[in-house]
Amino acid sequence: MPIDRIRAMELHRRARGKIKIYPTINIVNEEDLSMAYIPGSVGPCQAIQEDEEASFDLTGRANRIAVITDGSAVLGLGHIGPVAALPVMEGKCLLFKIFADVNALPICLDSTNPADVIHTAELLAPCLGGFNIEDISSPNTFTVVQELQKKVSIPVLCDDQHGTAVVILAALWNALEVVGKSLEKASIVICGAGAAGLAVADLFLKAGATGITILNSAGILCSSNPKMNHLQLEFSSRTNPEGRKGGLEEAIRGADVFIGLSKGKLLNPEWIRTMAKDPVIFAQALPEPEIMPEAALAAGAAVVASGLYDYPNVISNLQSTPGIMRGALDVRAASLNDAIFLSAARALASTVDRRRLGPRHIMPDLFCDEVVPKVAEAVAQSAISEGIAAHPLPKGQVYNDTWERLFGGRASRL
Amino acid sequence: MPIDRIRAMELHRRARGKIKIYPTINIVNEEDLSMAYIPGSVGPCQAIQEDEEASFDLTGRANRIAVITDGSAVLGLGHIGPVAALPVMEGKCLLFKIFADVNALPICLDSTNPADVIHTAELLAPCLGGFNIEDISSPNTFTVVQELQKKVSIPVLCDDQHGTAVVILAALWNALEVVGKSLEKASIVICGAGAAGLAVADLFLKAGATGITILNSAGILCSSNPKMNHLQLEFSSRTNPEGRKGGLEEAIRGADVFIGLSKGKLLNPEWIRTMAKDPVIFAQALPEPEIMPEAALAAGAAVVASGLYDYPNVISNLQSTPGIMRGALDVRAASLNDAIFLSAARALASTVDRRRLGPRHIMPDLFCDEVVPKVAEAVAQSAISEGIAAHPLPKGQVYNDTWERLFGGRASRL
Repeated sequence: MPIDRIRAMELHRRARGKIKIYPTINIVNEEDLSMAYIPGSVGPCQAIQEDEEASFDLTGRANRIAVITDGSAVLGLGHIGPVAALPVMEGKCLLFKIFADVNALPICLDSTNPADVIHTAELLAPCLGGFNIEDISSPNTFTVVQELQKKVSIPVLCDDQHGTAVVILAALWNALEVVGKSLEKASIVICGAGAAGLAVADLFLKAGATGITILNSAGILCSSNPKMNHLQLEFSSRTNPEGRKGGLEEAIRGADVFIGLSKGKLLNPEWIRTMAKDPVIFAQALPEPEIMPEAALAAGAAVVASGLYDYPNVISNLQSTPGIMRGALDVRAASLNDAIFLSAARALASTVDRRRLGPRHIMPDLFCDEVVPKVAEAVAQSAISEGIAAHPLPKGQVYNDTWERLFGGRASRL
Repeated sequence: MPIDRIRAMELHRRARGKIKIYPTINIVNEEDLSMAYIPGSVGPCQAIQEDEEASFDLTGRANRIAVITDGSAVLGLGHIGPVAALPVMEGKCLLFKIFADVNALPICLDSTNPADVIHTAELLAPCLGGFNIEDISSPNTFTVVQELQKKVSIPVLCDDQHGTAVVILAALWNALEVVGKSLEKASIVICGAGAAGLAVADLFLKAGATGITILNSAGILCSSNPKMNHLQLEFSSRTNPEGRKGGLEEAIRGADVFIGLSKGKLLNPEWIRTMAKDPVIFAQALPEPEIMPEAALAAGAAVVASGLYDYPNVISNLQSTPGIMRGALDVRAASLNDAIFLSAARALASTVDRRRLGPRHIMPDLFCDEVVPKVAEAVAQSAISEGIAAHPLPKGQVYNDTWERLFGGRASRL
């Protein structure tokens, strides 16, 4: 077993849970008990019974979400089931806390039936301010997110879909700026047609992209592709009405951009040489990317990004999902939509100082303090513009509040 | 609005949630991220996939429960719905943390259909070590607890049923010792036939009581009582085959014990004078008891207890539920049963120093440090004896571990 794996196992064994519950009120005597429990809870209960909106002020609901999975598509491990998915869900809850001060509950459901997942989530809604749908296999993940959002009036975010789409779009805008190309005219190959691939394609289209080719394991999505689900079929007609066929080797020839959201080692470096001038390569598969960054650069790529922390240009959902949820919760967005995701992507892209923008710096550092406040602010203002924010706030407040939440205490301790 | 109610509202408004999520691991750089999230979670995920038991060591599951309600019978407020129930559920989660160091998630379900509640809880089980069912109306609460326990192999505790039954039985054993009577021979009137009343009657019967009379709002449970649900009907034949009829006034005449689990002001002090010598009165309705303690004493009661913090002999589920859950989690009890509850009640009764036992001291102080460790130890050893503990521990260890969890840090800080 590699040493890092042993250390990680040991960390998990010692932590016995990456998150825990913490009291915001202490109880050391009968008076505390009266205030915090009985009869102290009676007033808040009755106030909420009169007006459910009061639940956002008198309980932790406004800042509490559920991270929900069915364990069917966990990391690159596939369908490992709800119990085995727990380390990842706890990890995501930990990240929501540390990166956005959101209180997230890890919920691993023992059913891969989308109707079950939707119904359960709907029943859980009264105690929550939002949902993050995580690691549910495609196309079920799309069904769950769309149907659940119709049933609840709190935001339903999907890390794999929305989080990925926002972060990839932001990175691509910056990468194309570096190589002097435009999203509208670029020829873009998206390798992988799961939750991430299709959501990325969708947001690219909404952002004005016109030249998108998507591939699944059987090749380019086209009417003759034998392995398509109903969503891939839909995307094949949206992106490939002319019926282009072939595998990755054919698809990538002459393309400006390769977006890998698939599996390790799929991209042959030789094929990069067949791309258009100054090709952009995002190899996002984890733990092993479609091509290692050094190999892509050696093959002539102008800009290379990946999910690997130890290379330049890390693209991670950590740069999108926490900030989106923070902003949505702060203004009590009733839902999320493409306008909001586009705003989030623009805000994220703009966190890179234009004086530093370059082939090795298309994205902010993972721990850049600007990212979450800026994304949250953009999401909040966009939700207000869209008319779906129940608790609108003045411009700049979500940015400031988020900064204060995340770094205020730390600063004051200096 | 009374001043205490204003203060409690203010406390809730400031706290914005009585519990929050807290990280057990900090993440300040890429290496932390690798360890705690990706790829660090991969090892634990795979270990759990191979053996689900590993989830109790590698995640927070072993010490995490859900506090589940449907909002149908919240405190004395009745069916206020899942959103309005949230302050109470968060309060219960706070108490689980402070009194037993259990990480409890507040879950308020938007359905009062028992099948929905059971199914949802079952789907949630993979991320949990136990359930606490709370404030679900009777008889649904019995259906939920029984059916859910059949479907999951983690303990299903019901605060209203089991928590109340254990604490009332412990208090009654001590009260009867004070007045020199025995449970087996005592004539006991239980006023209230909801979750608490029926569960108390059931555990009393298991403990050897023979003279129990139960009343609901239409009077003594008997075949001619017109307002009985199916469970009350069952209890009427178990406790009243001879078909005694009448209201509380008739039932209490000549009785040794009155247990009030009903509504405020139901007990006329004059009726106490008709009871047997040295009557025992437990007036547990909240916020207003069936009779105020001073009135009961003035009417000749020998021992009086209530749920009121500012009177002697407070009987509160805080003395049972947290300790039961702590013990059940520590030895990974697959379920709970009457033998376990009887052990818990005996342990709780024994926390009162026999030299101090008296009419004004039948129960330990609410903040007595012995209670939770002793109850937890008893529950743990009982679960081991019953052969339902997946993680048996030597005698004394749960007591010591619980003490260390609750007070160890505090002591070491002195």
